[in-house]
Amino acid sequence: MSLIVQKFGGSSVADAESIKRVAKRIVETRKAGHDVVVAVSAMGDTTDELIDLALEVTPQPDPREMDMLLTTGERISMALLAMAIKSMGHEARSFTGSQAGMITDARHGAARIVDVTPVRVREALDDGAIAIVAGFQGFSRDSKDITTLGRGGSDTTAVALASALKAEVCEIYTDVDGVFSADPRVVKRARKLDQVSTEEMLELAAAGAKVLHIRAVEFARRHNVTLHVRSSFSHLPGTLVVPPSEKDTMEEPIITGVAGDLTDAKITVVGVPDTPGMAADIFTIVAKTGANIDMIVQNVSLAATGRTDISFTLPKSDGDKVLTALRAEQPTIGFQSLQYDDQIGKLSVVGGGMRTSAGVSAALFTALKEAGINMEMISTSEIRISVVTRADVLNHAVQVVHTAFGLDADDEAVVYAGTGR
Amino acid sequence: MSLIVQKFGGSSVADAESIKRVAKRIVETRKAGHDVVVAVSAMGDTTDELIDLALEVTPQPDPREMDMLLTTGERISMALLAMAIKSMGHEARSFTGSQAGMITDARHGAARIVDVTPVRVREALDDGAIAIVAGFQGFSRDSKDITTLGRGGSDTTAVALASALKAEVCEIYTDVDGVFSADPRVVKRARKLDQVSTEEMLELAAAGAKVLHIRAVEFARRHNVTLHVRSSFSHLPGTLVVPPSEKDTMEEPIITGVAGDLTDAKITVVGVPDTPGMAADIFTIVAKTGANIDMIVQNVSLAATGRTDISFTLPKSDGDKVLTALRAEQPTIGFQSLQYDDQIGKLSVVGGGMRTSAGVSAALFTALKEAGINMEMISTSEIRISVVTRADVLNHAVQVVHTAFGLDADDEAVVYAGTGR
Repeated sequence: MSLIVQKFGGSSVADAESIKRVAKRIVETRKAGHDVVVAVSAMGDTTDELIDLALEVTPQPDPREMDMLLTTGERISMALLAMAIKSMGHEARSFTGSQAGMITDARHGAARIVDVTPVRVREALDDGAIAIVAGFQGFSRDSKDITTLGRGGSDTTAVALASALKAEVCEIYTDVDGVFSADPRVVKRARKLDQVSTEEMLELAAAGAKVLHIRAVEFARRHNVTLHVRSSFSHLPGTLVVPPSEKDTMEEPIITGVAGDLTDAKITVVGVPDTPGMAADIFTIVAKTGANIDMIVQNVSLAATGRTDISFTLPKSDGDKVLTALRAEQPTIGFQSLQYDDQIGKLSVVGGGMRTSAGVSAALFTALKEAGINMEMISTSEIRISVVTRADVLNHAVQVVHTAFGLDADDEAVVYAGTGR
Repeated sequence: MSLIVQKFGGSSVADAESIKRVAKRIVETRKAGHDVVVAVSAMGDTTDELIDLALEVTPQPDPREMDMLLTTGERISMALLAMAIKSMGHEARSFTGSQAGMITDARHGAARIVDVTPVRVREALDDGAIAIVAGFQGFSRDSKDITTLGRGGSDTTAVALASALKAEVCEIYTDVDGVFSADPRVVKRARKLDQVSTEEMLELAAAGAKVLHIRAVEFARRHNVTLHVRSSFSHLPGTLVVPPSEKDTMEEPIITGVAGDLTDAKITVVGVPDTPGMAADIFTIVAKTGANIDMIVQNVSLAATGRTDISFTLPKSDGDKVLTALRAEQPTIGFQSLQYDDQIGKLSVVGGGMRTSAGVSAALFTALKEAGINMEMISTSEIRISVVTRADVLNHAVQVVHTAFGLDADDEAVVYAGTGR
């Protein structure tokens, strides 16, 4: 009997009705003859509400206690889900992160999974029960304390379970039909992709595609887990995210998709002395803040001044701490000033085909030029090209490029009312 | 350094503000040079809200999952309380029932404590931290599952911890100043008792005094734990509930207090054949339903008929199941009919002094007679006399008796707005 791991996000279990609907769906899979393990998130906005409550008590909640607090969210949804399934006449057992053997390090709020020992989950399956596991949470063997994996952690929980239990597939249920060649809310003729490689998915996620949490995709790639991103509102097949080896390269298009991202900002370090190792010094400081840098561009140094500018993009949420860290080191580095710009948009085209096909960047730049869209930064990886534009023209840019690469579908994509995960 | 266990109920931690107030109170105790262990209930009506949520999902929630669900309530309040204390610059660590070593049997929803091994609580104290323990919950060694102790369980958690940790005292914080000679809401001149024996407290609780959960008092008596019932809204000393031995008998009054209870109903089994062992048969049937019987009265048999009536009181909530059970056995027992009366009030006078002083019942009956209050049932124990009256005259009866036994204070008791625990 094949084992399937299913992950349901907060919007899929927002209230009693949704929980019953999800329970029905799980039971269908069980009836189809599969062993089923479910990873579930907290109901709707529970996590945010708990955070607000903590902030009412103290502006700096203790990390250990914060994890103790937040992990109650998934325990509520998993218990309700197990009740719902049992009320439909099927065995179900819920397990907390520690009960499910999600062993992590002790970094509260951003714990890393170090081991998965789902002994009790196995027992439940052997007893013919459906196992419901609390997403997002784990347990530190060293500190004996409860930990959380950080935002989007439930996706990671599901993939880690799928890997440890050798599941046939890990189904990630969301409120769209799957992974699209572009955001259907932006590009009307966005095309649902039947299959992408984990590598491409990783670039798409990094490029701003919200559908999957990047950490979960990384985990899936490292452990060869096949993901199936599909809608919890329909029974249509979604998008298979498969290890590169398994992907049928015959069908591989040059470009898989186009992604737009408005969550980044740009910092420019102006007038950096153009001496060896300066960039290293700057990004060492940035790295210490824990900020995630995406694109980096260094202008050609102006011989006259012997100084250069270094620009990089990072999540807006990391802006303040990085600016503060750099200002503190201004004397030692000796740059002239800092510029912060949070009105940028990042457009990325992703596709395994790029490796082998020349001229993708040329085609991209041409499309943007014809649309009169200015590029402020460019960076390329083996299967991704990203450019920075003004924020207000990003959606138009995504449209144009999607069409230019012949990705438009024949008919328009269905967009659900769902609030996303 | 002496160890104090403090218990705070749901109304004391109903919102962020109350939690900060309680945290301040705990820190004061710590600053006074004590080790402090806190048992805390779920915030306000959280438990009821979680129950409602479960009932929305299914009319018969699975007991194991129900416990998984309900135990999140105390985890939220304890985490918030620990955060609040840490934000005041004191070390605090919260522990779930299992982390605190609350080992119970596997009876979900009504688990019994079988062992208390508070190893991590000890470690926290040795590290100079304040330990916050989730009330109401435990962990079954056999099933490895999370359990709950049933309603009022947080009082029991506190007493069990005090016993296991050899605490100097177990402080039960509530919204009244302590244990009164009668309900201050009924008797204006009710007197706050400085000290009562656990035995008397047990009778008072059984007689309807809401201030302490009867199970916790039983536990305190069996394990010689001294309780201090006091208000979380004032710093006045409350009522010490001490093992009989320790109670200063010099001060022992004949009557400790008067309690009224409107939660009971009366069942009369009419026309029972007056043959040996009939009562035994009837109460075996009743016992099988798990109902708690309080008073039992058997009328003198009428020689003419050879039949007798047997009346007993029980919680209204148990009425239906007992009536059903008895009707089912009517043929075998051969009684004529059943009468159910839920309009009764139960008045009890409690006092260790009764043992040695004659005429307490006489004085009680006289007081009621002079007030024109009719008694329908009478039962006496070594330190308690209870009588059943009509429900609508109970409060008046309590007033009258309180005065008759000279319990009235010189001034009126302060009644807080608090909603009780």
